[in-house]
Amino acid sequence: MELLKNLEPGTGYQAWLGYPSIASDKSINEYMAYNRLHVTEDDEVIQTAVSELSRGLEGMLGVPPTQAVQVENAIVLGTIGGHPHVGLVFVEHQFEDIGPEGYFIWHDNENQSIVVGAATPSGVLYGTFHLLRVLRMGASLENLTLVERPANKLRMINQWDNMDGSVERGYAGTSIFYKDSRFSEDLGRVRDYARLLASVSVNAIVINNVNVHKVESKLITEFLPQVARLAAIFRAYAIKLFVSVNFASPIEIGGLSTADPLDPAVRQWWKDATAGIYQQIPDFGGFLVKADSEHRPGPFTYNRDHADGSNMLAEALKPFGGIVIWRCFVYNCKQDWRDRKTDRARAAYDHFKPLDGKFMDNVILQIKNGPIDFQVREPVSPLLGAMPSTNQVLELQITQEYTGQQRHVFYLIPQWKEILEFDTYAKGEGSTIKLAASGALHGNPLAGIAAVSNIGDDLNWTGHLLAQANLYGYGRLIWNPELTVDEITEEWIVLTFGHHEKLMATIKQILLSSSTIYESYTAPLGVGFMVTPHTHYGPDVDGYEYAMWGTYHYADWQGIGVDRTQATGTGYTSQYLGPNCERYESLVTCPDDLLLFFHHVPYTHILHSGKTVIQHIYDAHFEGAEQAAALVDLWADLSGTMEAGLHKQVTERLMEQAEHAKEWRDRINTYFYRKSGIADGLHRFIHL
Amino acid sequence: MELLKNLEPGTGYQAWLGYPSIASDKSINEYMAYNRLHVTEDDEVIQTAVSELSRGLEGMLGVPPTQAVQVENAIVLGTIGGHPHVGLVFVEHQFEDIGPEGYFIWHDNENQSIVVGAATPSGVLYGTFHLLRVLRMGASLENLTLVERPANKLRMINQWDNMDGSVERGYAGTSIFYKDSRFSEDLGRVRDYARLLASVSVNAIVINNVNVHKVESKLITEFLPQVARLAAIFRAYAIKLFVSVNFASPIEIGGLSTADPLDPAVRQWWKDATAGIYQQIPDFGGFLVKADSEHRPGPFTYNRDHADGSNMLAEALKPFGGIVIWRCFVYNCKQDWRDRKTDRARAAYDHFKPLDGKFMDNVILQIKNGPIDFQVREPVSPLLGAMPSTNQVLELQITQEYTGQQRHVFYLIPQWKEILEFDTYAKGEGSTIKLAASGALHGNPLAGIAAVSNIGDDLNWTGHLLAQANLYGYGRLIWNPELTVDEITEEWIVLTFGHHEKLMATIKQILLSSSTIYESYTAPLGVGFMVTPHTHYGPDVDGYEYAMWGTYHYADWQGIGVDRTQATGTGYTSQYLGPNCERYESLVTCPDDLLLFFHHVPYTHILHSGKTVIQHIYDAHFEGAEQAAALVDLWADLSGTMEAGLHKQVTERLMEQAEHAKEWRDRINTYFYRKSGIADGLHRFIHL
Repeated sequence: MELLKNLEPGTGYQAWLGYPSIASDKSINEYMAYNRLHVTEDDEVIQTAVSELSRGLEGMLGVPPTQAVQVENAIVLGTIGGHPHVGLVFVEHQFEDIGPEGYFIWHDNENQSIVVGAATPSGVLYGTFHLLRVLRMGASLENLTLVERPANKLRMINQWDNMDGSVERGYAGTSIFYKDSRFSEDLGRVRDYARLLASVSVNAIVINNVNVHKVESKLITEFLPQVARLAAIFRAYAIKLFVSVNFASPIEIGGLSTADPLDPAVRQWWKDATAGIYQQIPDFGGFLVKADSEHRPGPFTYNRDHADGSNMLAEALKPFGGIVIWRCFVYNCKQDWRDRKTDRARAAYDHFKPLDGKFMDNVILQIKNGPIDFQVREPVSPLLGAMPSTNQVLELQITQEYTGQQRHVFYLIPQWKEILEFDTYAKGEGSTIKLAASGALHGNPLAGIAAVSNIGDDLNWTGHLLAQANLYGYGRLIWNPELTVDEITEEWIVLTFGHHEKLMATIKQILLSSSTIYESYTAPLGVGFMVTPHTHYGPDVDGYEYAMWGTYHYADWQGIGVDRTQATGTGYTSQYLGPNCERYESLVTCPDDLLLFFHHVPYTHILHSGKTVIQHIYDAHFEGAEQAAALVDLWADLSGTMEAGLHKQVTERLMEQAEHAKEWRDRINTYFYRKSGIADGLHRFIHL
Repeated sequence: MELLKNLEPGTGYQAWLGYPSIASDKSINEYMAYNRLHVTEDDEVIQTAVSELSRGLEGMLGVPPTQAVQVENAIVLGTIGGHPHVGLVFVEHQFEDIGPEGYFIWHDNENQSIVVGAATPSGVLYGTFHLLRVLRMGASLENLTLVERPANKLRMINQWDNMDGSVERGYAGTSIFYKDSRFSEDLGRVRDYARLLASVSVNAIVINNVNVHKVESKLITEFLPQVARLAAIFRAYAIKLFVSVNFASPIEIGGLSTADPLDPAVRQWWKDATAGIYQQIPDFGGFLVKADSEHRPGPFTYNRDHADGSNMLAEALKPFGGIVIWRCFVYNCKQDWRDRKTDRARAAYDHFKPLDGKFMDNVILQIKNGPIDFQVREPVSPLLGAMPSTNQVLELQITQEYTGQQRHVFYLIPQWKEILEFDTYAKGEGSTIKLAASGALHGNPLAGIAAVSNIGDDLNWTGHLLAQANLYGYGRLIWNPELTVDEITEEWIVLTFGHHEKLMATIKQILLSSSTIYESYTAPLGVGFMVTPHTHYGPDVDGYEYAMWGTYHYADWQGIGVDRTQATGTGYTSQYLGPNCERYESLVTCPDDLLLFFHHVPYTHILHSGKTVIQHIYDAHFEGAEQAAALVDLWADLSGTMEAGLHKQVTERLMEQAEHAKEWRDRINTYFYRKSGIADGLHRFIHL
């Protein structure tokens, strides 16, 4: 196993997996008593666990662990079936069902040992990372009993990396996987990335962008040997490899004249191609597909539906245990802005809901959290949980496409928690998204959560150091959606920066306020977009207003917002069930922060907050920009509490954010002042 | 000499140089009487004239001309000093001073010959092309006496071609000069292009984009042999070759650490480089420079001014007779949109006017026709004619960057005529731009007109067939600014399509109405821009409104326009002299079509036309889109009057224009309806 590169301190390269020596004598003494490893299995993943544990212990304690002959005074790692002592402990203590990936960590008072046991090697690996977290957090091992199993079976990362080395919507440098239409020669960073992912329980990765161009189409043919090399790296970390495929591959690389999913030659082509993959990668995960979406080819070309398209691939994968993940991001991207009836928000539900029950059991639909596209504020997609007989995964976006592009700090965990706790009422009260995602709601065998990664070849992985918290938190949350925002945040801060009271308080404050601040100075009240076309960075209120992408705000001299009600609008609210439908439909009950997503209202409309819409816009933008500026001071105060390099890189980003927040403030305020003619009630200066 | 490629009819490749056989028996009989050439000089350019004449006569008469031993019953071509008979005719008839490039064409009744004479071979070539035009127009040769000399000494074309093969602001395919960072292997098209240019008197060409990137910087070093090959092609057509140079060349390719124009090593580097050029191209024209403009390097980097920068290059070129053409397109392209004091329109004048008299006599300042950037409607640049002691050339843009990109028809000759006739009052009444451009106004030795080409490797050269008229008309107009729009237009129509009454009437109508139509449905009343950022194609009212490019309209709920008055605005009007200044300054006298360029007015302001500004916007946009649609019908009616291929290609463009004009209409009307809240007085439907 390749070790982390020997880098200058302060780069952030180690992320949350740094293991500095422990400062507290008490802890050192306690932990030293277990600095022996008792392992009997030579499975690759268990050996990964051993390496990780050795490295962590050596870092924290100053000496590497020795090999233990007895289980006494040792850390015992193993599977229930493979390590006799672990099996014995499991049977004696009857730990609740830990499932295939769960684990228990148990402090054996009698033998003075720590037992990390699981049903499978991957469980052992997750347990090991958990034990390392316990040590890094400085907890006592006395009476330790932890029993965990993941809520979600599929815990996936999507890389939007292209083989030319670019990363679509990537804000942390270029790809660590590819360069100049080839695989990177040095895969050391991929290995280090696998460590980061496994440490937070990710068990699946799609290695290329959902927009599959000509060259990436060949990943499943010409480039298979290199893909197999990557699969081997991830396999050691219990991560399955998936590939995004081009629906038109039979034409593009297969030499056929059609990609019609019902054409026998096409079906055979996919079967042959799939068999070829499994010959080289026996545990290959399967395919991710973006079809009939934003100019990508798909079954619509042949008058087939998405069940036809995905089932064809599922049939090819079925004999090998592979799965198809089929994205529901399907909408009319050639909309006419004059047409106020067509509603992009409706599209996924309208396209897919009627197909419920028509998909094979190894097809999973991947559904974005909101009906539009990872905006700062959107309602939850009504398609989530709405197809009882179809497997679904929830898609999140860790990369901050619309949330500041890792130049602004935007901590996503609170948003994701809100989404997971949202009640769909699909099976009555309590039908939350977290249950829909995990498959528990409808009893789906395949389910889980996927997210678009936020890493690149920047030394600190994520461009903005604080954006590492989003990757960390994503992993923690998909393992256990019951974790609180506070728990995740505090863990990440300690693991990244160490123990320090003021540092903890300040960084927590910055992270927890970040999304509210960003929302304040960008598009108001859930209306979305207002960003520069193509790049999606920075303000452009009318940037998408007359475009064909279906993302409008309809601001005129009187008011703003999209009428999505059944009474007078597009009827999108009818896709929600029971209380949700009523709540969004009515101006009286619609929450302020989604008001303009659901309703077109005059600027003088009074919000629940008591302010008019226009005054809210002005206030939020003045306050948001002020708060962004205040983050710089908060951070400045942390000078000396961490590596200077870490402090400096965040300072630079926060300063950029503060400056850019002013641009947002001024453009938005001026736009609405110019349009409404209504002056700020507090007489602050707004440029005309 | 390479002949025109043998192409399918109807491509438009021959442009105005096709020579179909003459239909009228009378003309054939008349012309046949002269189908012999009497030429005594073997000069390369005269031989070009012979080739062109032979080709034309053969095409029109069906048989090639023979060589004449006597001057009787022949066309006699030659220079006054080189061809004794020509010299004799010149002396006897005392044709008024024809200058170095002028010519006379004289019908010798006695000998029944046509004498084309000039002081230089280039004059002979221009005379020959003129004679060919006479024949193509079907005029009688009886008593023919034509004496011409060009109004402008420098008649230049700027190619904005990059060596990667792209053409900046090119709308007719890719470069005919370059591909993949090399010179095109087949230079046949370059030769054919040289013919087109020489036929309308262009005598200078800059072969690369003013934005000089790394690879093009090497045109004056590594690529010199290939540049010399191009120079040889153009030399045969009496066209001098110039190169755009990178001001930072001493650093980029010279290995120096500075490009400071006062640094002796830098000056020496340019002297050496220039000497190297002249070794391979003894008649090299000189350099074109875009410096300190839109992120290009320049003297400002070293706290030097533009006289320092250009004089350094002029000094290097001086010994060889070369010249420096220095662009005045210098402005702050990082303007803050909040800043209403800084005015991009002022920039060229403010930067350059104080430097009058400081430039060497082989420096020419190249000044765009308007103060902003080739908009549909702009006032004339106040810098033109304003520097008595400095050489200037007027810069026009044939390529339709802001005028429909050769997808919309926009005949530029009327606009250029207006510009040339504009009176600057620089030396009292009658100080027109045409006199400033020609140098006659202040007696400048170097002067003329330059323009950005509109050609690419599309088979018909210009994408839109009708855009050929702009290239043709440009050449005709810079030779003789006194030509009327009608004369030029009729010439081009006959030379391109032949004689046909209805065709003449219809195409003339389309061309002459085209700029008014386009102006109607795009940005109103001189306010400019409102185009999609970067591409500059299609409507985006706020596209540049909050950008750093200094191009704003300041539309709010009450009104629109840029206050450039001295009384309350940026004071730009003060750059104009006498009556111009007063006319633009006052709302009462400012012409409607420039109103919003000079004034910010309420939507309810009454124009001279009697309409309010808002009603004008609605009316113009409804009418403009309607008129654009009507062009399709007009053109349809010409079916059968020309090659089907020619008819079809224009039909397609006109249909695209009609469709796109509706998009312009709707976006602009909706934008202003949404902003002003004022409904259309005629109750037409405007999308909200």
